[in-house]
Amino acid sequence: MPSSIDTIDTPALIVDVDRLEGNIARWAAFAREAGVKLRPHGKTHKCVEIARRQVSAGAVGLTLAKIGEAEVMARAGVRDIFLAYEVIGGPKLPRLISLAREIRLRVGVDSADGAGALARAAQGAGITLDVLIEVDTGLGRCGVRPGEALAALAQDVARLAGLRIAGIFTYRGYRSDLEAAGREEGEVMVREADRLRRAGIEIEEVSVGSTPTGRSAGRVGGVTEIRPGTYVFNDAMQVRWGSATPEECALVVLARVISRPSRDVAVLDAGSKALTAEHGPYSSRGESHGVIRGYPDCQIDRLWEEHGRVQLTTEARRLRVGDLVEIIPSHVCPTVNLAERLVCVRQGRVVETWAVAARAQVQ
Amino acid sequence: MPSSIDTIDTPALIVDVDRLEGNIARWAAFAREAGVKLRPHGKTHKCVEIARRQVSAGAVGLTLAKIGEAEVMARAGVRDIFLAYEVIGGPKLPRLISLAREIRLRVGVDSADGAGALARAAQGAGITLDVLIEVDTGLGRCGVRPGEALAALAQDVARLAGLRIAGIFTYRGYRSDLEAAGREEGEVMVREADRLRRAGIEIEEVSVGSTPTGRSAGRVGGVTEIRPGTYVFNDAMQVRWGSATPEECALVVLARVISRPSRDVAVLDAGSKALTAEHGPYSSRGESHGVIRGYPDCQIDRLWEEHGRVQLTTEARRLRVGDLVEIIPSHVCPTVNLAERLVCVRQGRVVETWAVAARAQVQ
Repeated sequence: MPSSIDTIDTPALIVDVDRLEGNIARWAAFAREAGVKLRPHGKTHKCVEIARRQVSAGAVGLTLAKIGEAEVMARAGVRDIFLAYEVIGGPKLPRLISLAREIRLRVGVDSADGAGALARAAQGAGITLDVLIEVDTGLGRCGVRPGEALAALAQDVARLAGLRIAGIFTYRGYRSDLEAAGREEGEVMVREADRLRRAGIEIEEVSVGSTPTGRSAGRVGGVTEIRPGTYVFNDAMQVRWGSATPEECALVVLARVISRPSRDVAVLDAGSKALTAEHGPYSSRGESHGVIRGYPDCQIDRLWEEHGRVQLTTEARRLRVGDLVEIIPSHVCPTVNLAERLVCVRQGRVVETWAVAARAQVQ
Repeated sequence: MPSSIDTIDTPALIVDVDRLEGNIARWAAFAREAGVKLRPHGKTHKCVEIARRQVSAGAVGLTLAKIGEAEVMARAGVRDIFLAYEVIGGPKLPRLISLAREIRLRVGVDSADGAGALARAAQGAGITLDVLIEVDTGLGRCGVRPGEALAALAQDVARLAGLRIAGIFTYRGYRSDLEAAGREEGEVMVREADRLRRAGIEIEEVSVGSTPTGRSAGRVGGVTEIRPGTYVFNDAMQVRWGSATPEECALVVLARVISRPSRDVAVLDAGSKALTAEHGPYSSRGESHGVIRGYPDCQIDRLWEEHGRVQLTTEARRLRVGDLVEIIPSHVCPTVNLAERLVCVRQGRVVETWAVAARAQVQ
């Protein structure tokens, strides 16, 4: 293994393990102090070494979306997983049942059709499957609306043999005022949980919050669990939203200048296949596909699959063909999903390589 | 292996092999008739079974970008590869040299610094490496401008022991009038080749053209080689540009409806991790992340990693939780890069599964 960063082939994903462990410890401490369970979303890292660190620091288990991801993490010793996702489709059910026999597994539901299929599969296998009902608190994706729609679905699900309602969950995503958005997210969900309880439905878990809203939502009394994901690495988007500092960014894409076609342009060997095409943050000059360490105002203005074009600031004109740059990605989760491995460094020295073991597990 | 499509787990990439073979045959026939070499870009499929079909149909070899991709294809028997990319960075050079000893390999250059490093590596290994100089015909990515810049770089490279100039190449990409754009691309490159020859530099290869511009560029006298990639599968973007018909789209993402949160919205289990977030084509209702077969006016208006949200047209409101849909992706190349395998069908029956063997080879 190369021991210093400039001997690593590019593009590569580099993790600063000290920063990573700092991020893991800070959120674990927050959850302890707030008295909520921390169930990190594993989609950010997809990496068993990081999952183990999260659980060691006090996480109750993981949140994931797909059965394939859960299978990888269960094999690595994670015994408590919540699939915050509607698991739909006959071919998936045998794997779901088999996993539910092995570990503590919970699954999202948001429709009577979906719940019915899960119930039939569980009943047929002679097990009871724990489900959490997804509530749409404003994102406009999956989930039922608070109030009557939620109450009606909860009554439907409660009648199904094979399922047990373990709670409710939501993912609200980002809003302009994170503090207020998180608080409202928590308050809506606690109010809905109470309403369901008054209707005779046992609600144990009230599960909310992502990296941007997790801290304020987690402080709302009655919330039992938060599910941040991005906090392990953070990214330029989180920095822009104010939910992380640049010093808390623990992952960069190491890339090399491969062309200097003009005075103000450099082309990097990291394009959408290394950085993802997902738009994220903004440098001071406008939209950029990531922030270059040391040159934060350079705009990565266009990505092709294998090329990233950089509009150079005056000071960055010194970059030559062959030079290395470190890019804080816009959105780190899909960036990690593209890579086979993470190169781990401490104080600038390579110490280890971790596989992105649950990468590409979309089923 | 499931034999009918509705038993396949979702999301999955489905290739209609008859359509694929039709596309391969049509472009091979075009190249034969136009009297140019066909060197398809393998980035679209990254799949050895498809590369072999292309070579069997008459392709001279493959175009690729990264050494890792070339290593995979060389192991699978492709003996003639052009890396249409600037290979920069010390850690890559031993692999490049070793591959150049094994197969007929050519590499792009666009700077004296880059060429110098290649020359030193080749000379040190006692080989001569064939290079093609990249010309920027208007894309604004890598490459030198036609005229003096090209002539100067060609003179520099010609002086380097260890390298041999085998020709020039360009990738122009899409312009509004494909026919005129391709013709101009070809004409500029033929003119530049002649100018270099008059200056005493031997130019054997004049390599141009992608799927949109390849046919018109390939008809220009003096062009020797075209490098289309997307044509094997095509996608919604190519259909929109007029370089393919919907019937020539050979790959779809099979997905399932997992939620029907309202009358006009369905959520699919295919998000940016299955479809890619890259924007592409447009349904008649505006921008969409892909076109749903049978419901071409439904707009996939937003993707998250594991969710695709669809704005339903009136007729599409019949879609229920659990239903399958087939999505023609916006841009098929990054879509394929996300998948581990392609499920191959003929007349709706599953016949085989192919690995996306060169997936994620970014180094």
